Amino acid sequence: MDVVEFRPTPDQFAWTFGGAAPSHRIKPGTVLKLWTEDAFSGRLQRTSDLPSQVLDMTEVNPQTGPFFVEGAEPGDTLAIHIVDLTPARDWAASTTIPFFGALTGTDRTALLHAPLPEQTWIYQLDRAAGTLLFEAQRSDFRTVLPCSPMLGTVGVAPAGREVRTSLVPDKFGGNMDTPEMKAGTTCFLGVNVPGALFSVGDGHYRQGEGESCGTAVEGAMDVTLIVELIKGGAPEWPRLEHDEDYVVVGSSRPLEDAWRASQVGMVAWLGELYGLDPLDAYELLTQISLSPLANVVDANYSAVTKIEKALLPPADAFNGMHRHLRSLSKGLV
Amino acid sequence: MDVVEFRPTPDQFAWTFGGAAPSHRIKPGTVLKLWTEDAFSGRLQRTSDLPSQVLDMTEVNPQTGPFFVEGAEPGDTLAIHIVDLTPARDWAASTTIPFFGALTGTDRTALLHAPLPEQTWIYQLDRAAGTLLFEAQRSDFRTVLPCSPMLGTVGVAPAGREVRTSLVPDKFGGNMDTPEMKAGTTCFLGVNVPGALFSVGDGHYRQGEGESCGTAVEGAMDVTLIVELIKGGAPEWPRLEHDEDYVVVGSSRPLEDAWRASQVGMVAWLGELYGLDPLDAYELLTQISLSPLANVVDANYSAVTKIEKALLPPADAFNGMHRHLRSLSKGLV
Amino acid sequence: MDVVEFRPTPDQFAWTFGGAAPSHRIKPGTVLKLWTEDAFSGRLQRTSDLPSQVLDMTEVNPQTGPFFVEGAEPGDTLAIHIVDLTPARDWAASTTIPFFGALTGTDRTALLHAPLPEQTWIYQLDRAAGTLLFEAQRSDFRTVLPCSPMLGTVGVAPAGREVRTSLVPDKFGGNMDTPEMKAGTTCFLGVNVPGALFSVGDGHYRQGEGESCGTAVEGAMDVTLIVELIKGGAPEWPRLEHDEDYVVVGSSRPLEDAWRASQVGMVAWLGELYGLDPLDAYELLTQISLSPLANVVDANYSAVTKIEKALLPPADAFNGMHRHLRSLSKGLV
Amino acid sequence: MDVVEFRPTPDQFAWTFGGAAPSHRIKPGTVLKLWTEDAFSGRLQRTSDLPSQVLDMTEVNPQTGPFFVEGAEPGDTLAIHIVDLTPARDWAASTTIPFFGALTGTDRTALLHAPLPEQTWIYQLDRAAGTLLFEAQRSDFRTVLPCSPMLGTVGVAPAGREVRTSLVPDKFGGNMDTPEMKAGTTCFLGVNVPGALFSVGDGHYRQGEGESCGTAVEGAMDVTLIVELIKGGAPEWPRLEHDEDYVVVGSSRPLEDAWRASQVGMVAWLGELYGLDPLDAYELLTQISLSPLANVVDANYSAVTKIEKALLPPADAFNGMHRHLRSLSKGLV
Repeated sequence: MDVVEFRPTPDQFAWTFGGAAPSHRIKPGTVLKLWTEDAFSGRLQRTSDLPSQVLDMTEVNPQTGPFFVEGAEPGDTLAIHIVDLTPARDWAASTTIPFFGALTGTDRTALLHAPLPEQTWIYQLDRAAGTLLFEAQRSDFRTVLPCSPMLGTVGVAPAGREVRTSLVPDKFGGNMDTPEMKAGTTCFLGVNVPGALFSVGDGHYRQGEGESCGTAVEGAMDVTLIVELIKGGAPEWPRLEHDEDYVVVGSSRPLEDAWRASQVGMVAWLGELYGLDPLDAYELLTQISLSPLANVVDANYSAVTKIEKALLPPADAFNGMHRHLRSLSKGLV
Repeated sequence: MDVVEFRPTPDQFAWTFGGAAPSHRIKPGTVLKLWTEDAFSGRLQRTSDLPSQVLDMTEVNPQTGPFFVEGAEPGDTLAIHIVDLTPARDWAASTTIPFFGALTGTDRTALLHAPLPEQTWIYQLDRAAGTLLFEAQRSDFRTVLPCSPMLGTVGVAPAGREVRTSLVPDKFGGNMDTPEMKAGTTCFLGVNVPGALFSVGDGHYRQGEGESCGTAVEGAMDVTLIVELIKGGAPEWPRLEHDEDYVVVGSSRPLEDAWRASQVGMVAWLGELYGLDPLDAYELLTQISLSPLANVVDANYSAVTKIEKALLPPADAFNGMHRHLRSLSKGLV
Repeated sequence: MDVVEFRPTPDQFAWTFGGAAPSHRIKPGTVLKLWTEDAFSGRLQRTSDLPSQVLDMTEVNPQTGPFFVEGAEPGDTLAIHIVDLTPARDWAASTTIPFFGALTGTDRTALLHAPLPEQTWIYQLDRAAGTLLFEAQRSDFRTVLPCSPMLGTVGVAPAGREVRTSLVPDKFGGNMDTPEMKAGTTCFLGVNVPGALFSVGDGHYRQGEGESCGTAVEGAMDVTLIVELIKGGAPEWPRLEHDEDYVVVGSSRPLEDAWRASQVGMVAWLGELYGLDPLDAYELLTQISLSPLANVVDANYSAVTKIEKALLPPADAFNGMHRHLRSLSKGLV
Repeated sequence: MDVVEFRPTPDQFAWTFGGAAPSHRIKPGTVLKLWTEDAFSGRLQRTSDLPSQVLDMTEVNPQTGPFFVEGAEPGDTLAIHIVDLTPARDWAASTTIPFFGALTGTDRTALLHAPLPEQTWIYQLDRAAGTLLFEAQRSDFRTVLPCSPMLGTVGVAPAGREVRTSLVPDKFGGNMDTPEMKAGTTCFLGVNVPGALFSVGDGHYRQGEGESCGTAVEGAMDVTLIVELIKGGAPEWPRLEHDEDYVVVGSSRPLEDAWRASQVGMVAWLGELYGLDPLDAYELLTQISLSPLANVVDANYSAVTKIEKALLPPADAFNGMHRHLRSLSKGLV
C-alpha cells in the first residue's frame, strides 16, 4: 500500500471545499498519515484567550488536503476509512464565540440581544487514562470525561461549480460535526468533480450530540486514513458505516429537513441492500431508527439516521467495502 | 401502599389533557395497575385494515385516567415512576395514515401531493423470546426485533385554561413519543391545575427515534406506576430520570426549537444540581449531551437532551425521589 | 335585523376559544354592536407601566363573546362581516414583554440571553386627523402614523374537543393578528361545534405585518358586525374577503408551513371558484399571490395568501355572501 | 457618463457568484445596457417542452457579467440603480420542475412522494397593452395579467472565499426573487472582494410574492443600470430603495430566520437614518413594517421588510445616492 504522510504548515491549510489546489495526487488504496490543526488554527491556548481578541474568523477550521484521487469522476463514490485518530496535543480548547451557537441569537436567528459573554475552557488530556478534565470557569465544579476522538469535517468538492467554506456541511459532507465520525468508520461520499478533492480537519477530542455552544473539545489530531474509490454508486447524502451500524447524515435547515434528508437517504439505502419497497422501509425505519443529532449550530444543521446492523439480515453495503478496509486497517495501527 | 387497579371500558377513555372528569382520586404514594388500549382504539387488527376505513380519527390515542392527585397544586411537581410495562396482547399494529407522518405532506407541511398509500403492518409478539416479527408487505423481507415497551403518552392537564387532544406533546408532557419513557423511568411534570389530572396511554411495544411514519408498534399495555407528589419545584419542561441518565424533553416546531427547549431545560437542571453557572452548563452540555429525537410527526415535535450520570458527580435530583421510587418498585414486580 | 349590543364587564371576558359558556344566543343575520377591551385588559396606561409589574399574564387578550349561533353545526361556515371598527379610547399602548416577540429569545426559541428591556409606548389618537403619534422613548424622535383599525382576534371553538387560549391562532381563526381583518372584511370560518361559539377581541389601532415585538397599537374598540350562517362548505383554514381581494390565513410553525397552508387553501379556493386544476392554480398563484405576513410572534405564526380580484374573472365566493353582507352594512354605519 | 453595452453569447454566461472571470472592468458611474437570457437558458419555448427533457440543470439561471468595478474594496457599498427593464421577447415561460417548489417535496424537504406532474405554461406578451395572457393547461380558464418586469437575481461575489451558484440568495444578494427589484430601484450591496464582481439575470415579466412553484414568468430582458460605488458603509444584508420605500431583504431557512434577518437589518438602517435606539426601532417597525415574502423555493428563502417613506421624517440614505441616481436616470430612458 502506498503511504502518504502530510503535516501541513499554516500556509498550506485549505479553507474551502472546492476551489483549493490539491496538496497531493493519490491512487485509490493509499494510506494517509495526516496531521490536522484545531478549528481555531491553534490560536486559542489558555482560558484568558477570548475569541474576539485572538481569532481571525477568516482563518478558522483549517483543512488538511485536498487530495486528488486518481480516477475519481463525478458519479463515483469515495470511501474514506478512518483507521486511527490520536490527539496530537495534551490539551484542547472550547469557547463561546459571539453570535455563534445553538442557544444564542446568530446572524440568521437574528435578534436584538447583546452577545452572550465570551468564555474559554481548556481541557487537559490524561493520555494514560484516556480522559479529559472539564473545569468550570465560574465555580469550582470539575468532572472527568472520556476522550472520544472524532473528526468534525470530512468532505469533497461540491457540485454545481460551488466553493463552500470549511464551516459548512451539505451533500458533499464537510463540517457535519457528528460523533459518528470516529476510528473504525468508513465514510462514503459522492464525487462531484474529477479527483474528488477531499480534505479532512476539525478534530474533536470529544463532542456531545448537537454541539450546542458551537465548539467541541477542539484539538490537533493525528489522523490515519485509507482511501478507496468505487466506480459509480454515488449516494445523495453522506453515508457512514461502522462494524455495528449504518448511518446517513442529512444537512439543511430547519432541523426537520436535515433529519428528513437522512431518513429518505436511509430508505434508499435499505432499498439497495434488501430490495425493500420505500413504504416497507419507511415502516421499518419508524421502529428501528436511532436519531442522534450532529450539530445545530453550523450554516446547515446536521441530523443522523442510524440503524444497528444486528436488527437486520447480513448485507454487503458497497460490495463489502467497509469490511475490506477494516481488515486492511488491522495491520496499520 | 394504596393500590388502585383500573381497566377502562371504551366509554371511560379520556381523549384530552384537561377537560376530562377524573376517573379516580388518589393519594400521593399510590400504586396504579392500569391497562391502556392502543392508539388506534383497538380498531386496526389485520393487515387488510386500512386507516381510512376502520379508524375514527376523533377517537384515537385513548387515555387511561385522568387521576386527581390529592394535594397537588399549581407549581408542584408530579413524579410518575414506571414500575413495569408488559404487552397486554400478543400482537401490535402500525400503519400509514394519509397526510400524517414525517416523510409525507401533512395539513401543516401542506403540499399538492396525493397521499402516500395506506398500508398496515401487524407485529406478532414472541413473549418468551421478547421479540417482535417485522414482515414487509411488499416483498418477502422479514426481520426479528427486540420488544422494548414504552409509553408514548404521559401528561397532566395544561396551564392557561387549555384542553389539548391526547395527540399533542407540550410543557404538560402528553404525546411525547420518546423511547426514554420505559420501565424504570421517573417522569417529573409540573402541576398546572388542582389535582394535576394526569393520564397515560399509547403503549408502544417498540419505536425508533423520530417515529417517522407516525405510528409505532402500537399495542395495548399493562402498566404499573407509582405516583408521588413533590411540593413546589415544577420544571418548565418534562424531566425524566433513569438509573443511568437525566433527560429533558422539549416539544415545539420547528425541530430546532424543540431541541433548544430541552437544552435550556437541562442547563437549568444542571444549575439546580451542581450550582453551575449557565455558561459553564452550556459548555459542559456541548461536550456530553446525547440528543436522540423523540417524534417529528406530532402536533409539536419532541426532542430529547440526555446526560449519562456517570459523567457527573453524584447528585440527588428532587431530593432523591427517583431512587426512593425505584426502591419501592422492587417489591412490586 | 336583530341587533344585539354587548359591553362585557371584566368578569364577563372570555379567555379561550372553546370552553367558555356563551354570552348570548343569536340568530343568523344578527347585527352585533360590541365593545372589546384591549389585549392588556386595560392595565397598561402610561409609559411608566411595565408588563412585569402591571400585567396578569393569565388575563391577557380578553374576548367579547362567545356567541352561540342558532343552527350552526360542525361542517357549516360562519360568515362574520366587519361593518365598522372605531377606537373606543383616545390612546392605545404597546410594550415589550420579556421573552415574547420575534426578535428575542422566547420559551420556544429558548436561548441563554437575559430578556430585552421592558419599555412601554403610549400612542395618542387624533380622532379628527385619523392619526396616531409615535414618540420614541430613548430619543426625541416622533412621527405621525395613520390610524388603521383592525381586529387581532376572531375565532370559533376548535375541533377535537380542544380549548385554546385566546393567544393562539389556528384553523379555528383566533389570534391571527393580520391587518387584513378590517372594516369591510368578511371572515369565513368552519364551524366545529354546535353554535360555532365565536368571539372577537384584540383591537389594534394599527399594526405592521409580522407584529415584530408582539404587541400592536393595542386599544379598546367599538365593533359592529353582521353574522351569517352558510350550511356546509367549511373551509379548512380561515378565508377573508374584501371588495378587492380574496385572502386565506394559515397558522403554524415554522413560518414556511403557515404560508404553505395558506397557499394550499388558496389553491382549493381557486378550484372552487373557477374549476381550476390544482396544477394550474399553483402556476397562477405563483404569478399573482400577495404574501404579507400576519404575525411571527404568537403560539403559531400566521401567514397570508392574498389575490386581487381584479386579476381574476368575476366570481361569487360562498354564493355572493360578502356582497350581500356588504350591502346590508351600508345602512348600519 | 460611460456607457457599456453587453449581450452575452451562451458561452459568455456566468453561472456563479464569485469564481467567474469578469466580463468587463467598469468605472463607478457607468451606465450598463445589458441583455439577460431567461432562467431556462432559453430552452423552454412551448407548452410541450418539459423540464426533464429540455433543461440542463447545470445551466440554469445564466448571469450577465460579472462586472469588475474599479476601486471597489471589501467593506464598500455597491449601488446598482435599475433604470429600465424591458421584455426582450414577446413571450415568457413558467414550469413545474420535479422536486422543486414550495408546495412539493424537495431534496431538502425530503419526502416519499412521487414528483408532481411536469407542466409548462407560455405567456404571450401584449406589448401595447402591457399585459400577459395566462392560459390554464388543464381547462379553458384564461386571464390577463399586468406585465410587471423585475430582476430575480442581482448579486456580488460572496465573502469567505465562497463561490455560490446563481440559484442561491444570501448576504451577497443573488437569487432573491423579490418583486421589489424593479425599474426605479436602487440596490445596495456590501462588497466582499476587490472589484465587487456583480452580475444580474433572471428577468421576470411578472412574479407573485413567494414564487410558489419555483418559476416566475421567466423571460429574456433588456436591462439598463447605473452603477455607483460608496466607500465603506457595507450593509450586512441587501438594502433596496424606491422613491417611496426602504426595503431590506433577508435570506435563510427556516423562513422566520430570513424575515428576522430583514427585520434586524431594518432596525440597523433606522438607527443609521434617525439615531433611533434599537428598542424604539423595534417598536416602530412593529407598527409600520410591510412584510411581503420574496421566495420560499430557493436554496435559501428570502423575506422582505419594507417601510413607506411617507411614514417617516425625510432622510438621506447613503447620502442621497438613490435620489442622485434617480435624477441621472431621467435622461436615459
